[in-house]
Amino acid sequence: MNRQIGQRTLLFPNRPRVIGCASIVAGAEAEGPLGTGFDRAEADDTFGEDSFEKAERRFFTETVVLACRKSGLAVSDLSALLGGDLLNQIVTANYAARDLNVPFLGLYGACSTMSESLLLGSVLVDAGFRSPVACVACSHFSTAERQYRYPLEMGTTSPPTAQRTVTGAGCLLLADTLPPEARYRRIRVAAATLGTVVDLGVNDIGNMGAAMAPAACDTILQHLSDMGCSPADYDRIVTGDLGTHGSEMLKELCRENGVDLSERHFDCGAEIYASSQNYNCGGSGCGCSAVVLAGHLLPLLESGELRRILFLATGALMSTTTVQQGETIPGIAHAIVLEHTEGGNL
Amino acid sequence: MNRQIGQRTLLFPNRPRVIGCASIVAGAEAEGPLGTGFDRAEADDTFGEDSFEKAERRFFTETVVLACRKSGLAVSDLSALLGGDLLNQIVTANYAARDLNVPFLGLYGACSTMSESLLLGSVLVDAGFRSPVACVACSHFSTAERQYRYPLEMGTTSPPTAQRTVTGAGCLLLADTLPPEARYRRIRVAAATLGTVVDLGVNDIGNMGAAMAPAACDTILQHLSDMGCSPADYDRIVTGDLGTHGSEMLKELCRENGVDLSERHFDCGAEIYASSQNYNCGGSGCGCSAVVLAGHLLPLLESGELRRILFLATGALMSTTTVQQGETIPGIAHAIVLEHTEGGNL
Repeated sequence: MNRQIGQRTLLFPNRPRVIGCASIVAGAEAEGPLGTGFDRAEADDTFGEDSFEKAERRFFTETVVLACRKSGLAVSDLSALLGGDLLNQIVTANYAARDLNVPFLGLYGACSTMSESLLLGSVLVDAGFRSPVACVACSHFSTAERQYRYPLEMGTTSPPTAQRTVTGAGCLLLADTLPPEARYRRIRVAAATLGTVVDLGVNDIGNMGAAMAPAACDTILQHLSDMGCSPADYDRIVTGDLGTHGSEMLKELCRENGVDLSERHFDCGAEIYASSQNYNCGGSGCGCSAVVLAGHLLPLLESGELRRILFLATGALMSTTTVQQGETIPGIAHAIVLEHTEGGNL
Repeated sequence: MNRQIGQRTLLFPNRPRVIGCASIVAGAEAEGPLGTGFDRAEADDTFGEDSFEKAERRFFTETVVLACRKSGLAVSDLSALLGGDLLNQIVTANYAARDLNVPFLGLYGACSTMSESLLLGSVLVDAGFRSPVACVACSHFSTAERQYRYPLEMGTTSPPTAQRTVTGAGCLLLADTLPPEARYRRIRVAAATLGTVVDLGVNDIGNMGAAMAPAACDTILQHLSDMGCSPADYDRIVTGDLGTHGSEMLKELCRENGVDLSERHFDCGAEIYASSQNYNCGGSGCGCSAVVLAGHLLPLLESGELRRILFLATGALMSTTTVQQGETIPGIAHAIVLEHTEGGNL
């Protein structure tokens, strides 16, 4: 069976079902305009643990447990867990997978992880390799600051193009059949487009939106070309965490290539915080697009308010070492087509 | 189509072909007992670059280019690249994927990366999603020492259970059809078994073999159970980098579970260096199993000297942060069944 179309797009003829999801965030995200959509908010972002790293792990595991519970599944029903985070050696995902005791595939795509896990999870389900599978991405403001930037205690200021790493985890469950108790019954994955690593030479670590926008543009153009469609075929074209500045860049880059996104584009990072929260260009981190997808977009897809979206989590692929060595910042974005379908019991 | 058997095993009914491979190593690996099998040895492990990190990237990219050339393909013929390395944020793979300009899926499985990439690459090829695909793992002694241990200039000594990170990259190309010029024509992937994260409480960072052996044991036992077979069904059961000490532990753990590996077991880490090279328990790093598979085991499978092997790259999933925070070291191992087949032109 050929499941390729065009240069970089994968088709899922069996259209894996999104049978459930969950999102757990911290206070800043709960206070944002999308706050009511998240399943749970931890006012204390330490989750009662004695380190932020352990807290981040709790966000990951609790979100998977909650997604299973909401879908009428036990964690032990999961046949695979695909996920990652931003910490060195993706230790959040590794230790969470140990505690959850589910067969595990560790992914690193920086903030593109949610798309990458959905792409590979859909591949496994569509072809009959595994079902159900959990796709997860998680990030934490305080662990990311400590690892990528400065100790929190220094109280450094951030440039106007900076974004705040979202504290939270999002999980989607994909399966080939619908469990009786699944709350989500009408969303299916139709296709996905692989990203390539794109680097237009941005080297400003305080402006990640600019580093990722070219990769998002590249994948969007490739997807539309591969599928022979236009932005009008999607109710929303969702990017992960370009932020307000990066979103403008994306729209400009697409416009230069003859594609007008203005009516359709939605950036999770630009929407997760209110401007009154003063987080500069918005949210970032691989948890950002994961919680917005699970907490805000999937309910709209389930209800039919949205019929078809293109979801692209966007990742910046540098490390502190490459930045210190003067390298530019490459980006990547994988795209996933999520559709509302009638007849959810079928 | 159901492609599952047992609890954690994936079947590949179309049996993806290994159409080519390449391995590039540095001096220490070339001087070892398997040295003549590697395609190329760089006496200078800086690869002429001004940092070890850039050198590691060169090992990665040059190995992919060489694997393509040996198979009569251009790099642009690749429909996906799946790979990873040990550096924070897998920057070796990320920047190499940028330079190679191939659709990219970044993986982090520590030293289990070669198995993980082969598992997911086989999934993509078997079900008709992508072909050909490149599966790659890469590590570098000097970048790993700097990141995980101490500056090389300190000249610290290592405990007797320590292993040396292999400098090198291995790449396997998988495809659904045989290119006319492919040198490898008789090797196919039949099945794979997913690993779970296993942690028996080892916390000695100088004894990684002990941390990974339980995960290898767990996956071997699960694989044999899922497939209803025994070690006698394999010419070799290959682990990635348990080293001499970890290998003894693995055999003991399997023996306690009624499985005798002694006649079949082969550990890439224990075999890559001669004892006269004084590298304690042997080689490690995700490049270790990758270069031994590409440089030593695949030629034996192609010739028919080996008919069927179970290949398990083994990973330790900690970070320097988790070690400093007193966490134990979890391990993981995914298993891949590689078979010699007659009629390679079919």
